[in-house]
Amino acid sequence: MELKEIGRRAKEVSRQTGKLGTDAKNHALRAVAEALLTHADQILAENQKDLVKGRENGMAEGLLDRLMLDKERIGQMAKGVLQVADLEDPIGEVRAMKRRPNGLMIGEMRVPLGVVGMIYEARPNVTVDAFCLCFKTGNAVILKGGSDALCSNAALVAVIRDALAAEGIPKDAVQLITDPDRETTTAFMRLNEYVDVLIPRGGAGLIRTVVERATVPVIETGTGNCHIYVDESADLKMAVEIIENAKTQRIGVCNACESLVIHRNAADRLIPLLIPVFAKHRVELRADEAIYAAAEKTGGMPEGLLCPAAEADWGTEYLDYVISAKTTASIDEAIAHINRYNTGHSETIVTQDYANAQRFLGEIDAACVYVNASTRFSDGFEFGFGAEIGISTQKLHARGPMGLPALTSTKYIIYGNGQIRG
Amino acid sequence: MELKEIGRRAKEVSRQTGKLGTDAKNHALRAVAEALLTHADQILAENQKDLVKGRENGMAEGLLDRLMLDKERIGQMAKGVLQVADLEDPIGEVRAMKRRPNGLMIGEMRVPLGVVGMIYEARPNVTVDAFCLCFKTGNAVILKGGSDALCSNAALVAVIRDALAAEGIPKDAVQLITDPDRETTTAFMRLNEYVDVLIPRGGAGLIRTVVERATVPVIETGTGNCHIYVDESADLKMAVEIIENAKTQRIGVCNACESLVIHRNAADRLIPLLIPVFAKHRVELRADEAIYAAAEKTGGMPEGLLCPAAEADWGTEYLDYVISAKTTASIDEAIAHINRYNTGHSETIVTQDYANAQRFLGEIDAACVYVNASTRFSDGFEFGFGAEIGISTQKLHARGPMGLPALTSTKYIIYGNGQIRG
Repeated sequence: MELKEIGRRAKEVSRQTGKLGTDAKNHALRAVAEALLTHADQILAENQKDLVKGRENGMAEGLLDRLMLDKERIGQMAKGVLQVADLEDPIGEVRAMKRRPNGLMIGEMRVPLGVVGMIYEARPNVTVDAFCLCFKTGNAVILKGGSDALCSNAALVAVIRDALAAEGIPKDAVQLITDPDRETTTAFMRLNEYVDVLIPRGGAGLIRTVVERATVPVIETGTGNCHIYVDESADLKMAVEIIENAKTQRIGVCNACESLVIHRNAADRLIPLLIPVFAKHRVELRADEAIYAAAEKTGGMPEGLLCPAAEADWGTEYLDYVISAKTTASIDEAIAHINRYNTGHSETIVTQDYANAQRFLGEIDAACVYVNASTRFSDGFEFGFGAEIGISTQKLHARGPMGLPALTSTKYIIYGNGQIRG
Repeated sequence: MELKEIGRRAKEVSRQTGKLGTDAKNHALRAVAEALLTHADQILAENQKDLVKGRENGMAEGLLDRLMLDKERIGQMAKGVLQVADLEDPIGEVRAMKRRPNGLMIGEMRVPLGVVGMIYEARPNVTVDAFCLCFKTGNAVILKGGSDALCSNAALVAVIRDALAAEGIPKDAVQLITDPDRETTTAFMRLNEYVDVLIPRGGAGLIRTVVERATVPVIETGTGNCHIYVDESADLKMAVEIIENAKTQRIGVCNACESLVIHRNAADRLIPLLIPVFAKHRVELRADEAIYAAAEKTGGMPEGLLCPAAEADWGTEYLDYVISAKTTASIDEAIAHINRYNTGHSETIVTQDYANAQRFLGEIDAACVYVNASTRFSDGFEFGFGAEIGISTQKLHARGPMGLPALTSTKYIIYGNGQIRG
């Protein structure tokens, strides 16, 4: 179908999905969950086609694993849809209604965004995830997944659309762009007439491309060069536990720690406690001079895991068993360093000092700023939102882990009784 | 100065303006207001240069009037700055702090956006306005005003910068791009490294250009093709008063009414009441067949002020003494018509019917939806915000009249005591 027609239909259908009551939406979501299970074989057969093609094209093992579906993964998808059905519906809430001196009653109502465009890579789970979060918030959604997952996505979307139709809901609440042409994707990013917001989900390259080309407003989900600053007054045992957790619990995620900043008066005491932890997990330490010297003096780092840091290390998100470390003479220097090199994601101070804790919270420019806790908590589920569309590292609209409200807008509703402006 | 250097300085200074206490900001704003008055002659002399050049270049009278400053207008500017000083400071407020099951305390703190870029036309008052709203919210601001106002803007910005410096605040909290080159303006729109948000203020052409070219996130302030729907059950006297106010109280503004939608069972009674009002204000009525016939039957429209509407009329923002009018058979048709042709600004229903009022509020897709009141109330001051940066017609970040909070972002602050993720 022509892209414009997809957009037109989505906009039209969004008027109807926006009016659906919570019960109707939840009922439909439960039907979708069931349909995914019922049609698992059909979905797996289509997924198999993508996998065969992927292997032929020499796709990396990690990517093939992300593309691969099995009964268990389809079960997880269905469970995810049911969880979204159980979440509170944010649509229709009216905040801060006030009576103006002229008698007008003005309140702010939470409403759907309208049409959400999702651009993502070859991960079929995002297809289901994006649909159910957008649908729960009354939006129509247009999906553009990676072309390596086209058969899988088409099968998933077909199952969802049929399940919606059986519930009396227009199928076009979810549409998939199947044209693999780059020009079509670019045109999609510029479909301002019909698309209210674009959410890219994927690697830094994908997100940069969308930000570069889109004229539709974008919610940027981003990379995390997350820091832990160990203050002079830190409880060092706590610092080590937090660093171990934030660096090694899961390395490939955006809320993992990539860089340590250590007060120079703490370094000599901290490094001997950290070395066994890094050695155990085989974490490569890229250290500035002072930390390098302290680590050499301590000894015990396995061959090749202690290296001098280069300037480029301060700005690098490794997503690997690598960490950079720098000493600073003061909290001011630490804050300045972090604000210079971070990506606005998640930053932690470990300290026992009240004033330093408050300064760090106040002055660090990031979506999530922690005192004495692991950066790994930056997550919609850990924050208690019950869902996550991504973690925004931009400052407009939504910042940090995004739950359902990030997929909503507001409108002012005004009750009058004949007021005119004087 | 090179654009990148302007950006770098703004970003650096924003760290400092973001930390300023409310008292310090208000004190500085009061000093700026005083400096504007003290240096009025110098500002007027520079403004004179712009006016002379404008006249030489054949600038239209309306534009010259917007460009022109005098003592009274500078007095109004200064008064505006003092009003912003008196507003509550939104920065630092922490919302919805909650304790998670693991003991983490998570709250959302209101913080400055960082660096705000303003792109606007030859209106020197926007220079002062944009500075004081951005400064009050702890942001650094980079201004790119219309080149026809360059001398005026340079004079105003110099006065503000000197006043800030005398208060011990870095001058670069406000910077003006003086390079009139289009390429520089485009580069400004793509300065993502340093600029957090762009706010274009001006006509539809300017805003379209910024949306087209910018990679920095944009808050779109927009045009208003505002409708009034007169329901079958409307109090027709109230309807006429609201229509007169919304159409004629001030014609050149985005919240003026441009189009009537009238239930067909109300048209024959309403038109005879409206004709004298339109005749009095010399409002041209572009009517569909039914309304045209009713108006002809009524008589009394001055020569040339009654015309048949063309399709293009439904989507036109006249900003003039012109109004389109269409009959519909039902509220459904009215809602569909308005959602099709409106620009998402402000829409009113006049009705005595409870269910229709609620349906209109629920289903109309616009920033401000009214029952029984004039669209002219869509304004930051009328809404009680005490200030207005513009009226957003987009759905991300801010929608409708924007007060100080629209110039802020949030960050999550998290108090822990050693939590790590399991």
